[in-house]
Amino acid sequence: MKTNRVQVEIITIGDEILIGQIVDTNSAWMATELNKAGFELAQITSVHDDAPHIVESLNMALKRADVVLFTGGIGPTNDDITKQTLSAYFGSKLVFDESVLQNINRLFSSRPGFVMNDLTRAQAMVPDNCTVIQNLVGTAPLTWFEKDGKVIVSMPGVPYEMKQAMSYEIIPRLQSHFKTPVILHKTVQVYGYPESTLALKIADWENELPENISLAYLPNSGIIKLRLSGLSDNLLGLEFSINQQIDKLSQILGNAIVAYEDIPMEQYVGNLLKEQGKMVATAESCTGGNIARSFTSIPGSSEFFKGSIVAYSNEVKTNILQVSPLDLENNGAVSQVVVEQMATGVRRLLKTDVAIATSGIAGPTGGTVEKPVGIVWIAACSEDVMISREFHFGSLREQNILRATQASILMLKEILEYK
Amino acid sequence: MKTNRVQVEIITIGDEILIGQIVDTNSAWMATELNKAGFELAQITSVHDDAPHIVESLNMALKRADVVLFTGGIGPTNDDITKQTLSAYFGSKLVFDESVLQNINRLFSSRPGFVMNDLTRAQAMVPDNCTVIQNLVGTAPLTWFEKDGKVIVSMPGVPYEMKQAMSYEIIPRLQSHFKTPVILHKTVQVYGYPESTLALKIADWENELPENISLAYLPNSGIIKLRLSGLSDNLLGLEFSINQQIDKLSQILGNAIVAYEDIPMEQYVGNLLKEQGKMVATAESCTGGNIARSFTSIPGSSEFFKGSIVAYSNEVKTNILQVSPLDLENNGAVSQVVVEQMATGVRRLLKTDVAIATSGIAGPTGGTVEKPVGIVWIAACSEDVMISREFHFGSLREQNILRATQASILMLKEILEYK
Repeated sequence: MKTNRVQVEIITIGDEILIGQIVDTNSAWMATELNKAGFELAQITSVHDDAPHIVESLNMALKRADVVLFTGGIGPTNDDITKQTLSAYFGSKLVFDESVLQNINRLFSSRPGFVMNDLTRAQAMVPDNCTVIQNLVGTAPLTWFEKDGKVIVSMPGVPYEMKQAMSYEIIPRLQSHFKTPVILHKTVQVYGYPESTLALKIADWENELPENISLAYLPNSGIIKLRLSGLSDNLLGLEFSINQQIDKLSQILGNAIVAYEDIPMEQYVGNLLKEQGKMVATAESCTGGNIARSFTSIPGSSEFFKGSIVAYSNEVKTNILQVSPLDLENNGAVSQVVVEQMATGVRRLLKTDVAIATSGIAGPTGGTVEKPVGIVWIAACSEDVMISREFHFGSLREQNILRATQASILMLKEILEYK
Repeated sequence: MKTNRVQVEIITIGDEILIGQIVDTNSAWMATELNKAGFELAQITSVHDDAPHIVESLNMALKRADVVLFTGGIGPTNDDITKQTLSAYFGSKLVFDESVLQNINRLFSSRPGFVMNDLTRAQAMVPDNCTVIQNLVGTAPLTWFEKDGKVIVSMPGVPYEMKQAMSYEIIPRLQSHFKTPVILHKTVQVYGYPESTLALKIADWENELPENISLAYLPNSGIIKLRLSGLSDNLLGLEFSINQQIDKLSQILGNAIVAYEDIPMEQYVGNLLKEQGKMVATAESCTGGNIARSFTSIPGSSEFFKGSIVAYSNEVKTNILQVSPLDLENNGAVSQVVVEQMATGVRRLLKTDVAIATSGIAGPTGGTVEKPVGIVWIAACSEDVMISREFHFGSLREQNILRATQASILMLKEILEYK
């Protein structure tokens, strides 16, 4: 969907991504920043350090895009050929640049043990027809080429060097080079609908969206994020228009909308807990600590998360959480009565305001006819309220753990919003 | 660098990657698996759900590669157009396929509440000139096209659906289609070396590797996997030759090699526990349940993992784990004495043979001059042996949690192998 936004493409150079050695987190970060700045990323291409292939990718990208951003392949070692390839492409000579050498000397002066060698000195050789931009945190300079009104930039692939360059040099320079329109995103998170059911439910609303507002479905572990993106020259008008659409959506979906912002639900619920001055504990069987892990992935989570009892064996359920051995014997570990006692038990034991408990069969083995793989009982409670529910998440272990975690966090949200 | 291996390209379809909403972990996983199976990944391309752009990418990929793998853009909603685009590209009609509908019905029968609707039913419409491969874990079928000796496959972008499809259908079918040569991989896992130091240490050995054996460095949370890959027509000879190289490597690296196989260390240690008939428990502060989460991600982990006390607050450390309040007061929570008492406490409380405990400052806040962000104390113990160590993992929260988890599991391994 080509819009009138400035079109950008990223070309990553190097073997690491193509042999699966690293995940390309750079491109995701760049995509986010480019979008926020009003640019549209049209394509990401990953190729080896191979000159003909690099040139072919650049030619194709220049047919489609206004800006081509190269990352990687500009280190000091022999396998790095991006600089030589671009220099040949633009018909330039490599010439010595004193300012690059000074920058490298400055860097090395603050890093005891780093000494200049020929490979590093060669970083100061740059194409004679580009704008050189200093790399303040690494030895390889950035090079900025212009051709037929288009911009081609080569930058390092080392994540913190790339981020520094993008944030402080490349994006500001691109914004002043091109005129970028206002872009605004708003996200609502919907729970409890399969994607196709949701699409049918909101089809009429979606079809009537104004032309400058587009919709994306982003499903993740049971939650579907609906992201509205608008383009305009008028920020206030655009914001009003998007909010109007979200109001309409809210009337269609009601409580199925679990958040009106784009944050992980564990963080959303963490914020709720902090606002209410409450602490949570978890008692986890089938989720095996993943709810605790989710909460504690948030910086500052000690303000709302006290701890967890991962009660993987029944003995821990009875001995530590004080689940009744008789109830466990009669109903099995995956049952309403046991999961409720786990929640009550951990809330009392860890002295928290609220608690969550899970017990289920994550699979792939351990299922029976009455209790198939994927069954999960979840309870969430405060001093006064207990909610418990049975779920069926299917046959995949990892998916079960993730979905049970998501469902647990949403049940805690219900408890916190209970009136 | 084009070799004589079968050339593969991946084209990912959809907005999520290009707006930075998700990181493209699929391609990294696929790259790893394709490499292991003897294929060479020549390019990864990410494009929007835009028919002309998809077609252009496919045309370019078919010029270079023997196999083009599409992921994504085959959901039931309007923005998903991969199926329609490929159908038009191959001059085919969409026809109803009863077997796909049966597969969807089978999936839905195990998920109460999921009912067939028109969008889902439309998933059973497939191009009439492709091979349909059932998606055993999702509603969108895989489609396999052949053209001029080349193979084009379209599969879901949902990670677990893609992985299931790649592992059990696509890679085996590609191997039999292209009669790929014998490829053999052996992996050793090395702990305790930065990558560049390791590279220097084994440089001579690496330079003398036979021509048909290549080496890849795969760093992950403190462990570096060294993967030796050999190509040959003679499996036995190749295996002998690779083993010979690993023997030499073992003489250079000694105990720094923590495993001679490519499995997650939590699984390796889980196997050790099962062999020795022992149970483990964990007491986690800074890792926040992630060690428990790692163990319980393994099917059948209830045979060796009993449970965990996630003691995020000091109150849980003293009240539940019986850490001495005086020792905690005098030494702080991040200290040798506290982490040892946590390990002893959880071992006694959960009645296990061995235990692990962690306490540290994951960051980004909470650090001091004496105890900076990234400091982690870890203890592992059995009835007779206690090991405790101080680590410094740097300033990034997520990395700290992952590295502390890895280090904890390796310390438990030491306890289990202690003689």
